[in-house]
Amino acid sequence: MPRSAPARAPITSPAAATVFTTVLTQGPVSRVDVARRTGLSSAAVTKAARPFIEAGYLEELASEERTGPGAGRPANPLAIRSDREYFVGVKITADDLIGVVTDLRAGIQTSRHHPLRDHDVEHVVAALADLVGELLDEGYRDRAYSLGVAISGDVDRETGLVRYSPFLGWRDVPLAELLDEATGLKTTLENDVKALAVAEQWFGEGVGASSFALVTVGTGIGSALVVNGRLVSGAHGVAGEIGHVPISADGPVCHCGGTGCVEAIASTEAILAAAKEAAGEPGLTMDDAVARARGGDESLREVFAGAGHAIGLGLAALVNLFGPERVVVSGEGVATYDLFEDQIRRTFAVQAFGSAGRCGLVIRPLPFEEWARGAAAVAVQGLFVPDRL
Amino acid sequence: MPRSAPARAPITSPAAATVFTTVLTQGPVSRVDVARRTGLSSAAVTKAARPFIEAGYLEELASEERTGPGAGRPANPLAIRSDREYFVGVKITADDLIGVVTDLRAGIQTSRHHPLRDHDVEHVVAALADLVGELLDEGYRDRAYSLGVAISGDVDRETGLVRYSPFLGWRDVPLAELLDEATGLKTTLENDVKALAVAEQWFGEGVGASSFALVTVGTGIGSALVVNGRLVSGAHGVAGEIGHVPISADGPVCHCGGTGCVEAIASTEAILAAAKEAAGEPGLTMDDAVARARGGDESLREVFAGAGHAIGLGLAALVNLFGPERVVVSGEGVATYDLFEDQIRRTFAVQAFGSAGRCGLVIRPLPFEEWARGAAAVAVQGLFVPDRL
Repeated sequence: MPRSAPARAPITSPAAATVFTTVLTQGPVSRVDVARRTGLSSAAVTKAARPFIEAGYLEELASEERTGPGAGRPANPLAIRSDREYFVGVKITADDLIGVVTDLRAGIQTSRHHPLRDHDVEHVVAALADLVGELLDEGYRDRAYSLGVAISGDVDRETGLVRYSPFLGWRDVPLAELLDEATGLKTTLENDVKALAVAEQWFGEGVGASSFALVTVGTGIGSALVVNGRLVSGAHGVAGEIGHVPISADGPVCHCGGTGCVEAIASTEAILAAAKEAAGEPGLTMDDAVARARGGDESLREVFAGAGHAIGLGLAALVNLFGPERVVVSGEGVATYDLFEDQIRRTFAVQAFGSAGRCGLVIRPLPFEEWARGAAAVAVQGLFVPDRL
Repeated sequence: MPRSAPARAPITSPAAATVFTTVLTQGPVSRVDVARRTGLSSAAVTKAARPFIEAGYLEELASEERTGPGAGRPANPLAIRSDREYFVGVKITADDLIGVVTDLRAGIQTSRHHPLRDHDVEHVVAALADLVGELLDEGYRDRAYSLGVAISGDVDRETGLVRYSPFLGWRDVPLAELLDEATGLKTTLENDVKALAVAEQWFGEGVGASSFALVTVGTGIGSALVVNGRLVSGAHGVAGEIGHVPISADGPVCHCGGTGCVEAIASTEAILAAAKEAAGEPGLTMDDAVARARGGDESLREVFAGAGHAIGLGLAALVNLFGPERVVVSGEGVATYDLFEDQIRRTFAVQAFGSAGRCGLVIRPLPFEEWARGAAAVAVQGLFVPDRL
């Protein structure tokens, strides 16, 4: 049962949503600029902004452009009051719960980790509620109404159902509803990579881009694609599987049954297997492989470069097919990106077709809190969508 | 200078456009069904349909569902009157102009080919105007107002500019404006693969699909992608380049500078080169290679199967990334698809990831008139968009 909504951002019309989103993601911005960017009239912008100012979500900044008595009405840019509401975001991994509290612009205020000892639904819900309680007790309880939860696997955001989570062994768990009750917050679930993409789209590299991709590299390799401003979800529930783009007809067999998939060459596990073979040491650890490659071990450097080459080919496939404005490559595997980055960029430059290669390529590590921040960004988006059915 | 529009379909509001498009692409359909599919009220549908009925674009069919005096108002499905307006479509190739006249549902009424002797802009415009004149003289002149033109290369539909056509050697030619004047018809230009995709989206396999892809195989290998009901155009002007998806890290070098691109293995030219090498006959022709492969020559059969494998890998990359509802594979190269199809399907089945493999895969030949029909479909779409600036 959905609880009755507390006093919140007064998003009562499409125009109100448009104006608030524009200031939230692009502000501070003058009313005239909001009108220009949204196609609304200045009068409609002023009318839509007023309830947000009254509710404390927006404020009018003192104009910096007052240039004298003849200059007419000053620009008075509109800005978000980020601390008007807080959001809780939690990422569930096989071993941990990572939680953050963010403000309205997904700025992290505080974070906590809890180990996860059991994958039983009841246990996970209770542990997550404990974590949320501790986070709220740091002084956010009276201005937090929403929880975002990010989890890998097949997640139905609209119904709040975890359809399939391989690492938890869950099928068809109504997690959002269970967390509503356990935490007292309105819960929104999302696939973890899509949640990261939401954070990028609204508050990161994707702001103002009508199309971009977020690629995550680590144990798995995945991506989320935004085209014409909307996430691509796939007609049959699958999209963004850059890890299963086949880039080497003679490559290794992948766990998916295919051959030469990017993930079969560049996942953390695949890299470690190749490193063990290259070194002739079945007991080699990833930390050792990284240290020795950084120290100049040529055969191990080649293993990492091979992974970078595979990622670069996968990126070229993605970019040649959908021509995004920008691609962000991140994920825990990118912690060692000094060993990859050169080769990713070199391969991409060769294989990107024509002007598709003008796509901006950002490669950067991903602190674990970022996943939880993505979950919080999904909760921020929840301001704009009706309660689930 | 845009001419003043002749008496045309009275598309005067978004609701009118929605109702007319629904009946055009999905009719005959009852008003109740139109309302259900579009989210409009029944009253709004009735109101929007009336001017189209009066102008002769729509008609009310006799209800087939009248089940007795107690059954209430009969369903009276709405249908398009396809012959109310005709459209001319022309595909420009390096050697030919192919022209068709179609009705409102892009049904071909007549077609003509003209050889193209010169790539000079003036000559092409004059030859195209001649072809259009001959087509209209077959009895379509009084009900044809629009011309669609399909051409490979970089085409700006909105401004009517051919930005770059490699095979004509053109840059920045304002072809639509020149053809407006030469033909007296309102001209819309589109890239040829995109034009084919429009025909599929509105009148073919794409009807009712929110996402699908059209892949063309021949001298070049390209595709057009529709996601969330809209063509993907690429932030930097490049998208759908499935021919330049790298699928074989050790494969042949491509003319684009990359390695192992689908096109470097499966284009007509690449197949012929591989066939010559397999047969050890530098003078082998494509017709001979096809005939001998069909006759059972194993080494030549393997060449075609290798091309099918490359296409299957490219399709898997596309489908794993986008998850379309359906993919249509066509093009002049598919004329020999008996030699490809098995391998395309087998490779696709292995490499498609999870439920992405449920994507429908249609492989079929493409008569040359289909390209011109695509151009005509673009002209039909022109009913719904304002004159170019």
